Amino acid sequence: MSDNSTFIHHVYFWLNNPGSQTDFEQLVAGLHKLSAVKTIKTFYIGKPADTSRDVIDSSYSVSWLLLFDNKAHQDSYQTDPIHLKFVDECKHLWKKVVVYDTVNV
Amino acid sequence: MSDNSTFIHHVYFWLNNPGSQTDFEQLVAGLHKLSAVKTIKTFYIGKPADTSRDVIDSSYSVSWLLLFDNKAHQDSYQTDPIHLKFVDECKHLWKKVVVYDTVNV
Repeated sequence: MSDNSTFIHHVYFWLNNPGSQTDFEQLVAGLHKLSAVKTIKTFYIGKPADTSRDVIDSSYSVSWLLLFDNKAHQDSYQTDPIHLKFVDECKHLWKKVVVYDTVNV
Repeated sequence: MSDNSTFIHHVYFWLNNPGSQTDFEQLVAGLHKLSAVKTIKTFYIGKPADTSRDVIDSSYSVSWLLLFDNKAHQDSYQTDPIHLKFVDECKHLWKKVVVYDTVNV
């Protein structure tokens, strides 16, 4: 099934210390707390799957996929106090973040 | 809500002719046909949202997000005849593909 109004916000995190299980778990715990933002419809916290092809980028440590009912809900999430607190508490953990924001066609 | 067994396959396409609406529509039409693969749980065909921050990559033309119940279903999708036909028919349209495969933590 496809949903024509969904706003997809997919974030990939590269940790400062990619070998640190502690840092990984701290970020995952932070994302679980972040998932409390009310406008989030669905969230998935992930790590690279065990797949390998030339086109696959598996160099990140954590994937944060959010589905929102619409762009307004995503915009609200960006400034939600829970989100701002997450960034404040966890930003020392990552060295790079790449975000892809997508709307259905 | 979160689902612990989901396999997330997110593909971003950069078109050879990013300004061509015809090529864009041809790729989107190809993805709609591709969505017939039986092991796909949910699919989203998208384009970059109207957002802009330093961390956001909006340089791609088309996003293809697939959710599978498990890795076996994704593996089956990779060799499904419908998938192979899609690649054969549409690969001339893109110059670059980046894939992120993710499993829940």
